[in-house]
This record gives sequence, structure tokens and C-alpha cells, in this order.
Amino acid sequence: MTNSLADHARSLDENDRLAHFRERFHVRDGLIYLDGNSLGCLPRETPAMLDNTVEKEWKDGLIHSWLDAQWATAPARIGDKIAQLIGAKAGEVIATDSTSINLFKALTAALSLRPDRGTILTESGNFPTDSYMMQGIARFSGNRIRALAVDPDALLDTINENTAAVLLTHVHYKTAAARDMAETTRAIQAKGALAIWDLSHSTGAVPLDLTAANVDFAVGCGYKYLNGGPGAPAYLYAPKRNHHADAVLSGWFGHARPFDFTEDYQPAEGIERFLCGTPPILGLAALEAGIDLMLEADMAAVSAKSASMAQMLVAAMEPLCKDYGFSLVTPTDPARRGSHIAYAHPQAHEIVQALRAEDVVADFRAPNVIRFGLTPLYLRHTDIVEAVKRLEQVCQTRAWDRPEYTARAAIT
Amino acid sequence: MTNSLADHARSLDENDRLAHFRERFHVRDGLIYLDGNSLGCLPRETPAMLDNTVEKEWKDGLIHSWLDAQWATAPARIGDKIAQLIGAKAGEVIATDSTSINLFKALTAALSLRPDRGTILTESGNFPTDSYMMQGIARFSGNRIRALAVDPDALLDTINENTAAVLLTHVHYKTAAARDMAETTRAIQAKGALAIWDLSHSTGAVPLDLTAANVDFAVGCGYKYLNGGPGAPAYLYAPKRNHHADAVLSGWFGHARPFDFTEDYQPAEGIERFLCGTPPILGLAALEAGIDLMLEADMAAVSAKSASMAQMLVAAMEPLCKDYGFSLVTPTDPARRGSHIAYAHPQAHEIVQALRAEDVVADFRAPNVIRFGLTPLYLRHTDIVEAVKRLEQVCQTRAWDRPEYTARAAIT
Repeated sequence: MTNSLADHARSLDENDRLAHFRERFHVRDGLIYLDGNSLGCLPRETPAMLDNTVEKEWKDGLIHSWLDAQWATAPARIGDKIAQLIGAKAGEVIATDSTSINLFKALTAALSLRPDRGTILTESGNFPTDSYMMQGIARFSGNRIRALAVDPDALLDTINENTAAVLLTHVHYKTAAARDMAETTRAIQAKGALAIWDLSHSTGAVPLDLTAANVDFAVGCGYKYLNGGPGAPAYLYAPKRNHHADAVLSGWFGHARPFDFTEDYQPAEGIERFLCGTPPILGLAALEAGIDLMLEADMAAVSAKSASMAQMLVAAMEPLCKDYGFSLVTPTDPARRGSHIAYAHPQAHEIVQALRAEDVVADFRAPNVIRFGLTPLYLRHTDIVEAVKRLEQVCQTRAWDRPEYTARAAIT
Repeated sequence: MTNSLADHARSLDENDRLAHFRERFHVRDGLIYLDGNSLGCLPRETPAMLDNTVEKEWKDGLIHSWLDAQWATAPARIGDKIAQLIGAKAGEVIATDSTSINLFKALTAALSLRPDRGTILTESGNFPTDSYMMQGIARFSGNRIRALAVDPDALLDTINENTAAVLLTHVHYKTAAARDMAETTRAIQAKGALAIWDLSHSTGAVPLDLTAANVDFAVGCGYKYLNGGPGAPAYLYAPKRNHHADAVLSGWFGHARPFDFTEDYQPAEGIERFLCGTPPILGLAALEAGIDLMLEADMAAVSAKSASMAQMLVAAMEPLCKDYGFSLVTPTDPARRGSHIAYAHPQAHEIVQALRAEDVVADFRAPNVIRFGLTPLYLRHTDIVEAVKRLEQVCQTRAWDRPEYTARAAIT
């Protein structure tokens, strides 16, 4: 590590106009947390938001808080806030349920709009739950629907007149490679299929414009860059033109008039039809705190700082690639990647454990990838330089050979 | 209201061996909350449990809390606790998602066990989301599956060789009438169909023995008698013999080895296969606090106190039935009902509003029903007598005629 890199990092931090956001989060001194792409840090506002929901709205308001504290409209209200982060319009996003459940809704809704087409398509190597939810639909359909995962390079050529929808992840969970959303959506739609995007590693990480890209459906995660807390509610996006779709998971909160208690399901007119059961209010409260904070930041500045930190990381890692066998997996062009940087290494798993002992948190993705999540709101350029310095020490001492760094599961 | 009834209530409260539970909840002085069947009161332990999850496990443990704080196993751990409340075995219950989503899983899992049968059956007048989820399955199947709701009296006779599963609510959300679970399950299974029970208004309210009743699948709600908070995670029950079923919503948390990130879904061996997406940790933390408290109480004592309070309510209401047009909807036999008492009244909606102004919370169910929820852990017999006294005042002044009590939505 050269001193000039450390000096440069200090200089960048001094001129960082997002620097003040760091104190809005709880980040322990000494810890370098490069895993905000798995679980974002706790915003300082969140406990107060939860306290208000629990100690005031639940404790005092009780059942009346569904109306008086706007619990019933929280999924749509928070959805409108997410819309601002992803270039969607008000009334096109709803926050509830998990990403997996929302994937199911988006996929079945798309199928309802293409009743004459029987294939749903994704790329191999996509995040597993995307493929798994597709496979569930295929199994349940009794082979009426076919779920297909093909090589990324063959994807667009595979789309044909039987393809109802293509489900793709915008920023790949492992490599951070980003697809061109507008161009790919156009190519999908040119063949009459619908484009569904999983924005789990994009939302709050990179600038998005779903309206301009003419996306058909999208889902995204609340607990990564939105800092909504463990297992936070996810979101579903559907532009108004697709609000007549049938989301299959037609629970009572998606009904036009839930409290009429009618026998037959009649979906709500708007995005609320993509609600299902009673919304998870505690999770939504924490999510809203995270999103409110994210909305204070300019996404272009967030993206620029991410690129700047990434550049610094890649520069700092160059000697380690040469000396210790790391190889960069993530595209070098900032426009073609999300906000984490991945390296392959044969001892990836052990290295992540050894880094933890040095108070650096990165994560491992099988079989051999280390992910370094770059979250511009609470990380500094100097953190990047320091993290690589600690990694270098791990490599110099070959800490990955220590028996205590044995196999353990990791969490996305 | 006779004095002797009030005296009797005081005497019962003095000898109530559950009385000490009331101080374990936040219940404001003066408020008589008869809506714990919609949203249970806040247990005093819950904020500390949430604080620990947020301010320690999330803030300090960050991503490592998935293992170190046992987040990943929370759905199964809490499921095991629920199992104790419903007469199930360890490893047969999982807590996650909403009741509606879990209904979908139970219904599709049952269909996978009866591939040659194409009808799912319920009774008309069931809680809407039960019917709505069934209708979604039918729509998606392209008429391969038929969702049928028939008159309760005709239900058992309707089951035939094409009936895959019958979904029934144990305690009716409106009338509180309880079905004989064991007998009905036997009758359903005698015709080769599977019995799915919705225990939303039963769990924590009445003694249950799912093992003895040989139930095939069940779901239940976390935010009513379990006091898990608004939109708390629900649960799904499946006995071991049904763990090979296909729940369709095959998200990554239901995979045998989620962190292998394999392309193809391979379900977990046990109840974990009924997980789908990342579990809602904040909601689960609050739910666990409520369940831990409920587990301290003897369910037989809870049930006996519910019956005693119900008897008192019905006795106190008798003059109001005569003078002001209320009619009892709930069965009088304690063995045939849950833990709320419902009355019909032409001005039911307005009366619920007027009662709120008197600091009594009951709820309205269209078109003409008032529900009084009896939650033995935090209600006293004297509360019942006092509530009816205030209701009598509302009736005497005909407060329901006041223009401010206009139509408003209510929440189950």
C-alpha cells in the first residue's frame, strides 16, 4: 500500500459532500463494514421510528392505528417513497412481503397478461430465489408453464413467441455486473415478452429510471442499500398500464373494499391489488426510516462516491492480485456494475473469516467469491484503504490456513 | 345492571389466578379493550425484545446475527413455541409470512398430495382472505383447480372423490362459533380429502390439540391472541407425514442448503421447506415476546376465564337485548365457541363508534355485528360489567343517532 493512496483517500473524504451521512448511522469505531449489500447498517433514526410505532401507535392507538396512524396505507405510502429512488411514479410501487413473494406476484401477473405464452425465462446463475420461485410456478402449473434458465449470452436469442416474461437481475448478486435495463427491456418487449427486473442489488445503490426503461414489473429488497433492517419488507413495482394484471396471491388487503367482507375477490384498482395479507407494520416502520434517510441523499452523488470508492479499492487491490492470487470479477466500467466489488480467490471463504477477526466484514459467495459492499452513506475512502491494508496483513500471515476458519454458512 | 352482577364480578376477579398477567401488558386505566381478537395489547416485555434485536443484534452484530443471534432459525424456534400452544409437535410449525401467504402454501401443498383431485372446498361466510386465496389458485390453474364455497350445512355432503382439500376456519371470525375440529377432520379424511384449518381466532384463545385431531395443515395469526403486534408474522402447521408436500412458494429460505446457491430448488427435509423468502426478523422478535408470555399461562385456565367472562357478558347483556334490540349471535355453549361474543344490532356500526367515545373498544363486522373480544390475560370480569354499563348509557341516550358516527372502515 503506497502512502499516496492513503493521502488521496483522506483528500477525497475531506471533500466528500455525503460525509455527513455517516453520523446518521450506527457504525462502530474500528469496524469496516463492507457488507451493506447484504444487511445495511442501523440508521440512528430507526429506533425512534420503531418506538413510536410500538410505544405510541400500538400501545395507545391499538386497533384504531390502522386508520389513525395510517398503518393501512403504509405499503402504498412507503411505495411512493421508493418510487422516487427508482424513477417510478407515485402509485406504482407497494412495499410489503418478501422479495421472493413479490417475485411470485410479478411472474404470475406477467403470465396473466400473456395468456397465450407458456414460458418464463431467466439466465443461469441468477440469484437462486428468482429461479426457485419460477420453478414453483412451473411445478404448480402441471407443465402448462415452463421455467427456463439459459446461459446469459443466449438469453435474448432464446426469447420466442412462447415467452411470456423474462426475469432478470439488474445488478448480479455475485459479480455486481449490471445489465443495461432500458436496452434489454426493449429487446425483450420487441419479441412480445414482458420484462421483470429484480432490483435487490440496485435499489439505493445505483441511479434507476424504471419509467424511462419502460419496465413491466420489478421487485426489490428493503434490507440492503435501503437499510430497512433484517428481513425488511420488499417492494413490487408495476406501471399503471399493468395494473389490470392478476397477481394470483389475492389476499384480503388487495381487495377493492377489504372491509366489506364479500365472498368474491375483487381486486383494488391501483397498485394495492398487489398487496396480499395484513401488512407487516413493524418491519415497514423500520424500512420507512431507512428510506427517509436515503431520500435525503442525491442518488447521483451516491453513485459517484460508489464509483470513486470502487476505483480506490481496485487500485489498492492491484498488488494483492499480483502477489496473493486475487482476481477481479466485477466489471471495471462503473456504468456496468452495481455498488459492490467482487474478487475470486481459492481461499475466499477462509479469507472472509480471517478478515472478520481484523474487524473487516466482507462476505463470501460460493464457490470462491469475496464481495466488498460499498455503501456511500456510511463508508469513507480511508475505510477502503484501511480494509485492503488489513487484508494484506491476512495474506502476509496466510491467516486463511488457520483451522478456526472452517466452513460456515453466510447470508446474502 | 344489577349490583349483584358487579359484586359477583369483583369476587371472580379476586379469585382469578390469571389476574397477575394484566400487569404484564400495557393497558391504559379507564380503557376497556374488547378488541384483542383483532389486535392484541402490547406486552410490557416486547419493547425490550425489539430493542435487543435492533440495538444489539442489528446494530452491533450486523450480518453475523443471522447465525450468532439465531435469526436464521427464528421461524422454526418460534414455531416450536407455537406448537406448544396448539397441541403440535416440535418441528411441525414455522412462523413467517402472513396468514394469507401461509393459506396459499397449505392449499397448494394439499393439492400436491392429492394430484388426482381438482377441487378445494370451503364454506360460504368464511373469512374472506381464505376464499380469496382459494380463488387465486383456481384462476391461476386455468380451471384445472376449482375453488368452491358452499353453505356450511351442505359442506360435508359436498365432499366427493374430486375434493383435494377442505379449508375451514375453526372459530368463525364473526360469530365465534367453533367447529368440532377432530370430528370434522375425520369426516373430511373419510372421503379422502385433506383437512386444512385456519386457527386465526383460535390460537391462544381456546385449547387446541392438532395432533389428536389429526389435522393435515393449519395456519394461524400472530397479532390477535398471541399479541405479536400489527401485521405480525403468521404460522403454518404441517405434521411430519405431510412434509413431502410441495408448497409452490419455493423461495430460497425453504431450500435444503440456501447458501449453496444452486440453480435448482431442493426443498428442506422438515418444516423449513414451508419458508419462502428472508424471514421478517423484527416482526418475529415482537411475536416471540407475545408467545413467551402466552406460554406462561395455562391454556385450560385461559379458556375457563374466557368462558366465565363470556357468561358474565351474556348475563349483563340480557336486559339490553330485551330493551334495545341486541341479539346474541354466538353459541351459548362454551365448548362450541371461541373467545369473542358477537351481537347483531341494526345500528351496530354507529354503536361501536359511540362506545369508543366511552373508552370501550369493540369492533364492527358488516353488515350488523358487534364483536366483544374476551382476552383473559388482560381483561377482568369487572371490565365486562363496566363495558356493558357504558353500552347501556349509549343505548339510553341513543348516541348512535349522532351524525359524527358515520361510516368508517374497521380492521379485523
